[in-house]
Amino acid sequence: MAHRMDAQRVIADLRELRRRTGDERGAQRVCWTETWSAARSFLGELLGEIGLEPETDEAGNLWARLEGQDDSAPALVVGSHLDSVPDGGWLDGALGVMAAAGVLRAHADGRPPRPLALVDWADEEGARFGRSLFGSSAFSGSLDPASVRELVDADGHELPAVLDGHGVDLDRVLESGKRRDSVAAYLELHIEQGPRMEAQRTQVAAVTGCVGVERVRFEFSGQASHAGTTPMDMRRDAGLAAAAAALTIERIPGVEGGVATTGELRLRPGIPTAVAGEAELTVDLRHGDAAALERMLDSARAACETAAEERHLGMREEPVWRIAPSGFDPDLVASARAACEAATGTPAELESGALHDAAEVARVLPAAMMFCPSKEGISHAKEEDTGEDDLRVAIEAFGELVDRVLAR
Amino acid sequence: MAHRMDAQRVIADLRELRRRTGDERGAQRVCWTETWSAARSFLGELLGEIGLEPETDEAGNLWARLEGQDDSAPALVVGSHLDSVPDGGWLDGALGVMAAAGVLRAHADGRPPRPLALVDWADEEGARFGRSLFGSSAFSGSLDPASVRELVDADGHELPAVLDGHGVDLDRVLESGKRRDSVAAYLELHIEQGPRMEAQRTQVAAVTGCVGVERVRFEFSGQASHAGTTPMDMRRDAGLAAAAAALTIERIPGVEGGVATTGELRLRPGIPTAVAGEAELTVDLRHGDAAALERMLDSARAACETAAEERHLGMREEPVWRIAPSGFDPDLVASARAACEAATGTPAELESGALHDAAEVARVLPAAMMFCPSKEGISHAKEEDTGEDDLRVAIEAFGELVDRVLAR
Repeated sequence: MAHRMDAQRVIADLRELRRRTGDERGAQRVCWTETWSAARSFLGELLGEIGLEPETDEAGNLWARLEGQDDSAPALVVGSHLDSVPDGGWLDGALGVMAAAGVLRAHADGRPPRPLALVDWADEEGARFGRSLFGSSAFSGSLDPASVRELVDADGHELPAVLDGHGVDLDRVLESGKRRDSVAAYLELHIEQGPRMEAQRTQVAAVTGCVGVERVRFEFSGQASHAGTTPMDMRRDAGLAAAAAALTIERIPGVEGGVATTGELRLRPGIPTAVAGEAELTVDLRHGDAAALERMLDSARAACETAAEERHLGMREEPVWRIAPSGFDPDLVASARAACEAATGTPAELESGALHDAAEVARVLPAAMMFCPSKEGISHAKEEDTGEDDLRVAIEAFGELVDRVLAR
Repeated sequence: MAHRMDAQRVIADLRELRRRTGDERGAQRVCWTETWSAARSFLGELLGEIGLEPETDEAGNLWARLEGQDDSAPALVVGSHLDSVPDGGWLDGALGVMAAAGVLRAHADGRPPRPLALVDWADEEGARFGRSLFGSSAFSGSLDPASVRELVDADGHELPAVLDGHGVDLDRVLESGKRRDSVAAYLELHIEQGPRMEAQRTQVAAVTGCVGVERVRFEFSGQASHAGTTPMDMRRDAGLAAAAAALTIERIPGVEGGVATTGELRLRPGIPTAVAGEAELTVDLRHGDAAALERMLDSARAACETAAEERHLGMREEPVWRIAPSGFDPDLVASARAACEAATGTPAELESGALHDAAEVARVLPAAMMFCPSKEGISHAKEEDTGEDDLRVAIEAFGELVDRVLAR
């Protein structure tokens, strides 16, 4: 095929990116930092090689556009995010951006049927200010600037000032959405960040959508008291109530499917010599089906209520974050499945348990993703990796998907 | 009785101490601070009123001695500790010291049969450097100076330098033990710091001894992984193993008696979006019987081992602190019981679930304690309180106990 992706070049670009922006602890492309800007400079070099000059939109997203035969038609957009968590992996986000650059490179010698654009979304990870999917949610219109205006990083820097230092005016970020009219569809290649594909020996898979998330903090209030002088039958131990609730919540996916996680539990006073008077248990529930997700939340709430009642504690609930399940575009998913089958003989598909920029784009435009496996399911760590053969197959299958969508 | 304690004066002294060394957040008599020194200055004023000049021993313990008719006889020592936790209560420790001053005041107009001494132990709470019972364990000889030499406070100040600022040479603290030969017995009045006496409407009780403590940190190691992408059946959640262990450990006192507390549980990474890969559960076990305490520790260890095995985790154990149960002197306890009966009609007794300086003294000399109730069992907080009538009864009963022991 004329437009065949040069997967080895994409892998070489990823390695060069790692060399320039990582260190012995892993990737350091945290958004709104100098290292992140260095990653974008490297991307600019790659785009310059094929005669493209990237531009940045009002939300800090970087775009580059290859003219199409019908240049008035809306563009097919490919991309992901260059930003990483601190001490992150070399592939998370970067794979999709470098593969997108590879797609443009493969088509740069002629004009694709319609415009073909690359996007590097700003601040997918939210690592510095705690708000993930920043650029893509500004593009989709779901970001409320007022909700992030007060955010500060660990050093006390305020988000609006840091954005300003990168040429982004928080009051204007939603203007990035005016580009939506010129986009026909969005495709993203990403690592799975989980262990399922490796376990099933799948090299590349179509992603049917991203799960919905309900993240809620349950706060138990009992009575802090002396570990030595408080008889067992006079205790109101908030920590043990949270422990009992967590173990019940673990069993919810056995009934409803999905996953349930209790990775944050804080006790107060939190010392060995005092019964915990207060406990905060943050519950993260994920499911691809909205009704099932709601039932999971009901069950988690009931577990916490029961645990609190059994120990005569108070209990309150604080919503932390939620996002509805986002099914990707059925036609694009079918194309992705077909491209996977062409590449591997198997039309693999799975649902993403992690959130991605594509979930934000899917709110407003047809979108789909492809995944390649993650070794041992590890991500957000320097050990994050994918076998070179798996990377090659996935990058080529992504190129094949682009060609199929362009040909429609 | 000629030597009857002036309980109202002791209560007035306690209130004046609170006025001088507390604030709206509670008592601030943290050892090795200026406020603690101010508390000792006030004690010095009280002792000066009855013609006594206190002196400080090599471990920072303050002593004052009233001559006896037989002044070569070993002394009866009464006391407790002036130091408090930050934001502490007005009675913890201070009650025993002010009552001891009251005892000396009651006997100051004549010579008691044997010398009568007051001691204010240094740093019972260990609030600043984490090592409790400092002065009394130096006196008893159980303190190992090498084990505390590296301690630093929250601001990075080193213990040896801070001690030096208060005239204490860490290399010489064990020399305070040479005073042991001149002591016949030790008596201490303290608040219960628990809810049992209030529940039983007991105004004053003899303390039979202090429980032993086993404090152990159990460390579970599983695999940190993504909350969204890790299927439930592929997780190795250290936090849930610790939760299951904590709930099993809670049931141990139902079999063995004693109390079991899991007030400190730390998860890593400890964020809502990651399965906890590591968990540290600190278990505090207390029992008055050494064999039962050992069985409690065996059961706690088994609970952690089982929880780890069920989730295919690693588990290791780190001893944090231990002290054997200390039974007080049977004759002194009998005298205390009799003094309680004389004061209230009831020969109440109970075991202390908290540690006290008297437990250190009891290692080497006859010792006993008396408790008065704590409202709602609250201590180590500004809400710590005891009804004035209960205080009066307990202070007078303590005076009665001193008289009984002096008369033996």
